[in-house]
Amino acid sequence: MSTPLCIFDTTLRDGTQGEGISLTADDKVKIALKLDALGVHYIEGGNPGSNSKDIEFFRRVRELQLQAKLTAFGSTRRKNSTCEQDINLKHLTESGAQAATLVGKSWDFHVHTALQTTLEENLAMIYESLAFVKQSGMEALFDAEHFFDGYKANPEYALAALAKAKDAGANWIVLCDTNGGTLPGEISEIVSRVVSTIDAPIGIHTHNDAELAVANTLAAITAGARQIQGTINGYGERCGNANLSSILPTLQLKMGYSCVSDEQLKTLTSVSRYVSEIANVHMPVNQPYVGNAAFAHKGGIHVSAIMKDSKTYEHISPDLVGNKQRVLVSELAGQSNILSKAQELGLEVNSESMKSREVIDRIKELEHQGYQFEGADASLELLLRDAYGSSVEVFTVDSFKIMVEKTAAEMTTEAIVKISVAGEQVYTVAGGNGPVNALDNALRKALVQFYPGIRDIHLTDYKVRVLDEKDTTAAKVRVLIESTDFKDRWSTVGVSSNVIEASWEALVDSIRYALLDMVKDETIHELVRESHGLVNH
Amino acid sequence: MSTPLCIFDTTLRDGTQGEGISLTADDKVKIALKLDALGVHYIEGGNPGSNSKDIEFFRRVRELQLQAKLTAFGSTRRKNSTCEQDINLKHLTESGAQAATLVGKSWDFHVHTALQTTLEENLAMIYESLAFVKQSGMEALFDAEHFFDGYKANPEYALAALAKAKDAGANWIVLCDTNGGTLPGEISEIVSRVVSTIDAPIGIHTHNDAELAVANTLAAITAGARQIQGTINGYGERCGNANLSSILPTLQLKMGYSCVSDEQLKTLTSVSRYVSEIANVHMPVNQPYVGNAAFAHKGGIHVSAIMKDSKTYEHISPDLVGNKQRVLVSELAGQSNILSKAQELGLEVNSESMKSREVIDRIKELEHQGYQFEGADASLELLLRDAYGSSVEVFTVDSFKIMVEKTAAEMTTEAIVKISVAGEQVYTVAGGNGPVNALDNALRKALVQFYPGIRDIHLTDYKVRVLDEKDTTAAKVRVLIESTDFKDRWSTVGVSSNVIEASWEALVDSIRYALLDMVKDETIHELVRESHGLVNH
Repeated sequence: MSTPLCIFDTTLRDGTQGEGISLTADDKVKIALKLDALGVHYIEGGNPGSNSKDIEFFRRVRELQLQAKLTAFGSTRRKNSTCEQDINLKHLTESGAQAATLVGKSWDFHVHTALQTTLEENLAMIYESLAFVKQSGMEALFDAEHFFDGYKANPEYALAALAKAKDAGANWIVLCDTNGGTLPGEISEIVSRVVSTIDAPIGIHTHNDAELAVANTLAAITAGARQIQGTINGYGERCGNANLSSILPTLQLKMGYSCVSDEQLKTLTSVSRYVSEIANVHMPVNQPYVGNAAFAHKGGIHVSAIMKDSKTYEHISPDLVGNKQRVLVSELAGQSNILSKAQELGLEVNSESMKSREVIDRIKELEHQGYQFEGADASLELLLRDAYGSSVEVFTVDSFKIMVEKTAAEMTTEAIVKISVAGEQVYTVAGGNGPVNALDNALRKALVQFYPGIRDIHLTDYKVRVLDEKDTTAAKVRVLIESTDFKDRWSTVGVSSNVIEASWEALVDSIRYALLDMVKDETIHELVRESHGLVNH
Repeated sequence: MSTPLCIFDTTLRDGTQGEGISLTADDKVKIALKLDALGVHYIEGGNPGSNSKDIEFFRRVRELQLQAKLTAFGSTRRKNSTCEQDINLKHLTESGAQAATLVGKSWDFHVHTALQTTLEENLAMIYESLAFVKQSGMEALFDAEHFFDGYKANPEYALAALAKAKDAGANWIVLCDTNGGTLPGEISEIVSRVVSTIDAPIGIHTHNDAELAVANTLAAITAGARQIQGTINGYGERCGNANLSSILPTLQLKMGYSCVSDEQLKTLTSVSRYVSEIANVHMPVNQPYVGNAAFAHKGGIHVSAIMKDSKTYEHISPDLVGNKQRVLVSELAGQSNILSKAQELGLEVNSESMKSREVIDRIKELEHQGYQFEGADASLELLLRDAYGSSVEVFTVDSFKIMVEKTAAEMTTEAIVKISVAGEQVYTVAGGNGPVNALDNALRKALVQFYPGIRDIHLTDYKVRVLDEKDTTAAKVRVLIESTDFKDRWSTVGVSSNVIEASWEALVDSIRYALLDMVKDETIHELVRESHGLVNH
């Protein structure tokens, strides 16, 4: 039997302290659902005392009946005061969360310098605050901030802080390496000492300032800690928190601990990529276990050895974490995922058919040109529907024209779009604060008369990436567009040496995809007839 | 006295196996110069038997008289053959490098599966190849591929492979965790065993597949290894190699080893950023020690504590690695670096003056708007020169106009630019395969008549980044342009909600910067007079 470990995810709280990471309440709800499906045991959602966004998140997530324990974050009470007077503790106990994490000081230097109070008062703050949370009926966790620095400076005081938390009834005592500067050997020694001294379940919370957050977490577990606090992709302040995307597979596949089920572990790659998409943070291709290059093999002896036995250059089988091997240029690991995607869409697919062969060759060719479908599901779906004859041609593009003019006084951008909808030609012009914005506005203006529902669709993300950056402004670019109609979210891709053409391709795909749904019940011709009076050519 | 360690950099060899990393011979020479200044002891430049680019690199770098030992990489000889017949070993010994690294098998599984030969033949390959290199007068290093997997599978054989290398006279025996799947505890145990068994200097070469490359390197050093093989920023195949940018400061600042001088360590951030620029790989903001967010503090209690004492939330002082603390929106840590930059440029600066105050406020305001000068030195220089009155207005932009037209048959892009050079109005039109490319072409066409030297300038990089991606195609974008005139390389920045306007701003800065040099000796009016006959309006 493998030892079970408790996984405490703080992507939605500490993760959002990372530079460039900002999540709406809606983003947080989506991520919470994914984390719950992944099988983490605690989801720390934020600080319900700090802002209305977190209050909304706690309200909405309570209704979802997650398996994981929803956890609220706060601090020990203010100095020289009472818990009852502390507005943040009040919000915490009223958040509806099942558990609360309270951060408190265990480093004497911090008590003096940051809190500017006495060592005794800090111990009282820890004891009273945790007891207050417990009395409210919640589970209580104590995050001992800077515990390792504190222990090195004054071990007696650091341990006294933990003992106070235990006496107050804390369910978990979590040792934090808040500044991320502690070394694995120190972690190992100090955690062993704590485990043999404090009779309570111990957790570990590390930061990556010396690129050691993962190693430090593993060292703490080996020394007897049983809860891991971390974030998906290691998001967090400065250099980030311990990366659960790396820790979970190592603990489970290499060290014999049990964190989540094997099936859940197979969703790790997709969860990690999903969170990076929602957080709008580029995932490094070389991210361990879940990155796009984590099992990619580039030329030479490695590839020929891999062909003989993939164990020669792979430390684990990539499917155990839901990732895949990549060799040479092809991004999609073969026909099987393409065909399974087509089957998902209800298309009639025969893996042996000429058609399927052609589709796979076409996708490989597009990927070779720089298309990337992993981040553009909607474009892939359109391509498959086109190939298997299940798409509806809702409009065709005849031409477009853009004019940008800059004078000393002003900058004007206009786009003219000419499209055909069921034989009707529509001609519109619109402005915008950039050529792509103007094109987007003109295309919608042309279509809204036929499909009023298009008003609900808007772009949520627009990314431009130069593919061969060495080749200056004439290089190829890939444009990724993400759109939403408030219910769903979909992504499309365009590639060209001309950024306008690439953007246009992704824009048209985005609108075509949205219209797939809208034309399901009625035929396009009926729609055109109905709206005929409104069309202005 | 601290124990000295040997730093072996393989950014130019193993680093280039990373996805998306491709370096020209010229790029490699530039990086080699930076590595040498950083103080690494070996620079592995590539495989002189594999391609003409590496052959050119070795030829050029020999002339530079680096302090570091230039090292060539290759494999042990082919099976059932001789070293004399091995064309790769021949290239290696003729490369002019002072040292050679030979990779060979130490895992019995690999000997059988990948090499498909006998265990005995592999030992002969190791012995003969290293002896061959030594006889040529070079220093020889043995990279024992998959040593840790090999040791776990068959410790006797793995150690026998090392013993052969030692008997052949290898100067260093380097233990490689080629698949990156070994855990720190295993590394520690196995390295200790090797150090007590093999009487030769031992090195460590790890990969990051389990996010443990740094921890594994430190564990090996603690167990007695004395050479570290790694790459700047951890570049390398799949998840990368051991990251020297994290390992050097930890060993030197926290563990008491000596790797490079304290002054050299202070260049670590700039070297790491330089290599990421040349390799054209985005550096994650949260990269430990050297990332832009490594010492960045976001709101709340951390910032107020930092204000009291920066030790409260920083594990080391950022200036020890040449990085800096960042608080709030201001990217530049304060007026001191701006003023020192201005002094560098020979501008007359008084830190107390109104002017200096204004300049700093202006830069802070621009950064708040999304400008980023760390990657755009030339734009910062222009801004400072403009402020302190040392710039020359070489041209002014009156207006520009872009037309993009897409029909079923073709896509056309044209740009019209109207500028004034010393009172002369010049009006040009040019095509391009995108609006920015067309603008660039039109602007050069307008200026080349006055400054023929502009022919040598070309853009080497063009990056677009959406700053507030949540805000769709109407969001603000930042454009970074890098240019070169074959001697120097400079970067400029533009920010606007219109990608064309942002690109134009960066383009104009790039050309203005280039012309600063060209107009040094002659006045603009003389140039205009001379070229007058050539001007076509």
